[in-house]
Amino acid sequence: MNVVDLITKKRDGGEHSAAELEFLMEGIVQGTIPDYQIAAWAMSVYFQGMTAAESTALTLAMAASGETLDLRELARSDKLIVDKHSSGGVGDKTTLTVGPIAAACGLPVGKMSGRGLSFSGGTIDKLEGIPGWSASLSTEQFRRQLREVGLVVAAQTATLAPADRLLYALRDVTGTVPSLPLIAGSIMSKKLAAGADAIVLDVKCGQGAFMESLAEARELAELMVSIGRGAGRRVTALVTAMDQPLGHAVGNNLEVQEAIDTLRGGGPRDFQQLTQEVATEMLLLGDPELHSERMAGGEEKGRDGSRRRVQEAIDSGEAFDKFVQFVSAQGGDAAAVAGPGRLASAPVTVELRAKEDAVVTGLDARAVGLAVVALGGGRQRKGDDIDHRVGVVLSSKVGDRVANGDLLCTVHAGDMNAADLAAERVLNAYSFAGIHGLDPVSPEAGMVRGAARDESDAGAEGQEPSIVLARITS
Amino acid sequence: MNVVDLITKKRDGGEHSAAELEFLMEGIVQGTIPDYQIAAWAMSVYFQGMTAAESTALTLAMAASGETLDLRELARSDKLIVDKHSSGGVGDKTTLTVGPIAAACGLPVGKMSGRGLSFSGGTIDKLEGIPGWSASLSTEQFRRQLREVGLVVAAQTATLAPADRLLYALRDVTGTVPSLPLIAGSIMSKKLAAGADAIVLDVKCGQGAFMESLAEARELAELMVSIGRGAGRRVTALVTAMDQPLGHAVGNNLEVQEAIDTLRGGGPRDFQQLTQEVATEMLLLGDPELHSERMAGGEEKGRDGSRRRVQEAIDSGEAFDKFVQFVSAQGGDAAAVAGPGRLASAPVTVELRAKEDAVVTGLDARAVGLAVVALGGGRQRKGDDIDHRVGVVLSSKVGDRVANGDLLCTVHAGDMNAADLAAERVLNAYSFAGIHGLDPVSPEAGMVRGAARDESDAGAEGQEPSIVLARITS
Repeated sequence: MNVVDLITKKRDGGEHSAAELEFLMEGIVQGTIPDYQIAAWAMSVYFQGMTAAESTALTLAMAASGETLDLRELARSDKLIVDKHSSGGVGDKTTLTVGPIAAACGLPVGKMSGRGLSFSGGTIDKLEGIPGWSASLSTEQFRRQLREVGLVVAAQTATLAPADRLLYALRDVTGTVPSLPLIAGSIMSKKLAAGADAIVLDVKCGQGAFMESLAEARELAELMVSIGRGAGRRVTALVTAMDQPLGHAVGNNLEVQEAIDTLRGGGPRDFQQLTQEVATEMLLLGDPELHSERMAGGEEKGRDGSRRRVQEAIDSGEAFDKFVQFVSAQGGDAAAVAGPGRLASAPVTVELRAKEDAVVTGLDARAVGLAVVALGGGRQRKGDDIDHRVGVVLSSKVGDRVANGDLLCTVHAGDMNAADLAAERVLNAYSFAGIHGLDPVSPEAGMVRGAARDESDAGAEGQEPSIVLARITS
Repeated sequence: MNVVDLITKKRDGGEHSAAELEFLMEGIVQGTIPDYQIAAWAMSVYFQGMTAAESTALTLAMAASGETLDLRELARSDKLIVDKHSSGGVGDKTTLTVGPIAAACGLPVGKMSGRGLSFSGGTIDKLEGIPGWSASLSTEQFRRQLREVGLVVAAQTATLAPADRLLYALRDVTGTVPSLPLIAGSIMSKKLAAGADAIVLDVKCGQGAFMESLAEARELAELMVSIGRGAGRRVTALVTAMDQPLGHAVGNNLEVQEAIDTLRGGGPRDFQQLTQEVATEMLLLGDPELHSERMAGGEEKGRDGSRRRVQEAIDSGEAFDKFVQFVSAQGGDAAAVAGPGRLASAPVTVELRAKEDAVVTGLDARAVGLAVVALGGGRQRKGDDIDHRVGVVLSSKVGDRVANGDLLCTVHAGDMNAADLAAERVLNAYSFAGIHGLDPVSPEAGMVRGAARDESDAGAEGQEPSIVLARITS
């Protein structure tokens, strides 16, 4: 096969065969195809796109480019092994809640996670704030813990989908990141290589997410579901709002604490809701009983049953117990997560308070994320060290009325200087409207800028706006 | 300036500033921008194109990336220094005739030429078949010969427009060759760096040329004229037919002989015609008297005067004398070009004859060119040695009626085996229609496949179809 012919084919709108995409991905990993040819090809893909069949073949080729796990024989029962992926957001600690909940419901959860970069945090970083906890597991440890505990979270290794790692690094410096088939392939190839039977995808949408419009986010979600189907996996994708940070806490230890609170039945309402939604979908996909019920046409019955099981796992304490068990299994200090306030905290806190009566109309997630990075709680560059103690707790969020003197947020910092700088940035992230202003302010106004809600998919829940904007399932 | 931002700008349809294009071209030459970023940028240019202003700025940036010649002070009179460029074809030996004609008319011609690759020949290769002739001239030699002889042809050096050389090499392996602004920039940057005041471009069109359709060829011609205008040069572009080889001879020494015949008033009709047309345009651009006449509205008067001068240069023998003088000045053996049959000839000739009465309806220029490459008369790869003696003489061309036994063509080869193989390829390049067939065959049928003639520009010349399909001038 000739690489120039393949570039030309895609440039001219042709459709690649699976063999051609395998040839390209092997060439990337083996270094036999030079970067400049891959870059030209990626730009052609940016312009010409890919069919669903091509996207699936590309994803399979990337997944097959390195080590692949087969976790099937590890399931303790007839339940499927479920993975969960979020496209990244600010304050998104959902893996920390849905993993233990699903595992407590008997669903084996084996997950590879990444580290945070720029404004978006990473699950591994959050868990590493727990003394002793380690994400470096051998394949054998991973398998044993999945079998014995039913929940394992490991750092993604370089041997998993190396074609994706190399292609992503090249896309990052050649203006070819925002291509739906390449984004979908990047996400799904790692999920397929990691061996789960069923995957719940949380595609963030809004100004604090990679996909800013609902249309784009839906398209990506649909493509990933289609790829999963083509690869023989069950997939459900939720498109969820990410205009303001999720929950109250942003910053590693603060987020772990919020996840613990939520596993114990507390926590902020929006994070409770997302946890409930994602865990419900995981059970619906992975539990054969619920899945058959749903397949037999009992969509709502299946979902209601699933929701009840999720609530029971929280109410009974089983979900929290599973979290503690999981932390211990990976070397973490169970005492540090057993109660509130036991994780390391920042030496300086600064409270920001409202100076007049107002309504919060916006809270820029990206700006809050970047303020936490500046505090040392995230990375500007790969490999940067992070301070797990720092972050922000957002007491007032979009739609909240605040009176003069009410707490807006608390900055947790390493020193006063950093705290002051971060306080200014976080304050700038807020938008307000005076309650005596000309226009009545809708509590939802700032929630999903540029994205029309998709009520048909979202499942109306009384008066409360759902954080789920769309749901696509295979 | 950030390269990813520039790639993204072009990818999203933005217009580059001159400073941005200079930054990119400097980065290519200095090696500070990696190939993969240039490749992604070139593919973005392929898809998004460039405005006329961008194309001019790109060309100027490429021209300025290395050495530039200023030949102005070398002109012996008030006449401009004229260059001529052909986009490449099979049997195209026009530089060998128009250079001496223009120089004989008092127009200084200083030209940088290239070597042939694949089916298309190169002027330097043709001239190197003359014993002793050399294309390696120092800048000082180039200037002296231009001043003293008025005609010089040198091999293009690596120091002339190096950004073009590097960018072209990258385009060649990344599927980004067929982009009009990049093609136009590549051709024009070398012409601008080589210092001529006026340039006549011969854009070949048809199945034996890079531009297969008249629309594409016109677009390229117009863009190059616009770039030349933007760079302050006078430019005329002719779009000329290249469906069948030009003239009868294809192969280095055979073509030099045909050029000599034509300079002496003989030669094939189509080659005579193209020589006349190109030389006429060179005089029109470079001779101030003719140019003013034309500018004053006397387009046809100017052109008629110019045509007469060209014919006189041939009829008087001055054009041929100039050719001999030029050959001698660059070390060539004047005796070898003084009369017919004095250049080295191939040891084996094979004649192909018609087996029945027919009309030639097609003669695939590319196939003939590749047959000559296979004979050793051209290059498959850069740096290949070539045999100047071999080639093909096409006695019958499109539109000719042949009777059983008439000569179609003669293959000149190094040995019988090569001759037989080439004979088969050349015969396959011919298409015939039986003269007793159902449809009357138009002599023009095969001449410009896929290209409608543009009579308004072509200048009707009685009943004979013109080889010029369009004419664009600045």
